[in-house]
Amino acid sequence: MTESGKPILYSYFRSSCSWRVRIALALKGIDYEIIPINLIKDGGQQFSKEFQAVNPMKQVPALKIDGVTIGQSLAIIEYLEETRPTPPLLPQDPKKRASVRMISDLIASGIQPLQNLSVLKQVEEENQLPVAQKAIISGFDALEQILQSTAGKYCVGDQVSMADLCLAPQVANAERFKVDLAPYPIISRINKALLALEAFQVSHPRRQPDTPAELRA
Amino acid sequence: MTESGKPILYSYFRSSCSWRVRIALALKGIDYEIIPINLIKDGGQQFSKEFQAVNPMKQVPALKIDGVTIGQSLAIIEYLEETRPTPPLLPQDPKKRASVRMISDLIASGIQPLQNLSVLKQVEEENQLPVAQKAIISGFDALEQILQSTAGKYCVGDQVSMADLCLAPQVANAERFKVDLAPYPIISRINKALLALEAFQVSHPRRQPDTPAELRA
Repeated sequence: MTESGKPILYSYFRSSCSWRVRIALALKGIDYEIIPINLIKDGGQQFSKEFQAVNPMKQVPALKIDGVTIGQSLAIIEYLEETRPTPPLLPQDPKKRASVRMISDLIASGIQPLQNLSVLKQVEEENQLPVAQKAIISGFDALEQILQSTAGKYCVGDQVSMADLCLAPQVANAERFKVDLAPYPIISRINKALLALEAFQVSHPRRQPDTPAELRA
Repeated sequence: MTESGKPILYSYFRSSCSWRVRIALALKGIDYEIIPINLIKDGGQQFSKEFQAVNPMKQVPALKIDGVTIGQSLAIIEYLEETRPTPPLLPQDPKKRASVRMISDLIASGIQPLQNLSVLKQVEEENQLPVAQKAIISGFDALEQILQSTAGKYCVGDQVSMADLCLAPQVANAERFKVDLAPYPIISRINKALLALEAFQVSHPRRQPDTPAELRA
């Protein structure tokens, strides 16, 4: 917490996992300060001694709040949900909650880690784009099928949920890696609806304090 | 569900994610049937049309329960926790719940996907072991540091939680990939305590219906 008592988010403008948390904070109307951690500059500021003391995983996001520091985006969102329940990011019904968590985990464990910089650095440069695309396409094939039975206006019914906080940032990654989204009409439709919401706009990678001038929107 | 009304777990004996769910089912005393999905045989039974209808992610575990099918191990465990709360796998205190989920996600998103067969198949054979080891060591370095402040007898305090359901199977993977566990005294101590519990024993990869005879214990 800052002296003013505000939560502090360690964030990188382009990190899709940081964006998930920024959307949650915006939706719940939680005022916070950002400390940018540049994952590229100086060989990666996440590897600094100072930041390792904040998050031993050397990853963003991490949130200092209520006297504790929480890492892992979905753990942060679940904590916000339990301590600041309005508006809810999980439905009431346990089966629908399971759908939200299944979709969230599908993206957070099944797609994002496999197209992350740390994995791509381990394959030869000319293979990096195909490796990232393969992970995203495989995940999106499954996700599109799941959404056929869960989606309403958003991923699960007509209320924005944690699953949507994972979806929009993952679609942005897909676009960066030049994945053709034509085979995913439901994903594309939901993404468009999400990007029209203010909470997704103010938290967008193009509008962060650490967004480079040439990428700002 | 079977005709008898029992939940059905699609599982592979050696899948660490399947083991997480088997432990949860055992701890909560939920009677279930297993349908083994062999991830190696026939080019991988998870790729069959029949199984894709069960889980579009083509992964185990998946649990048929209460008329729905849930994929993603942590989503399954959270569902079991919400619908069968005794004994609890999450503490009452939101900050401790955040610690449990942070550790669970650290393993489920930050380690396991990076040492999974699908990733290893993308690197040259002689690099597979080092790639897997690197992912586990990097994660365990962080985990050991986190456990210094969260652990009691188990990962978070003295009650078995979802974090422990992730820890023991990940240590088993570390052993398979020949990771030296000497630098991780807390992880090792907790793992030993967990393996002494009946729920971890009956769910162990060496004691599953699909465990090959030569690996049975």
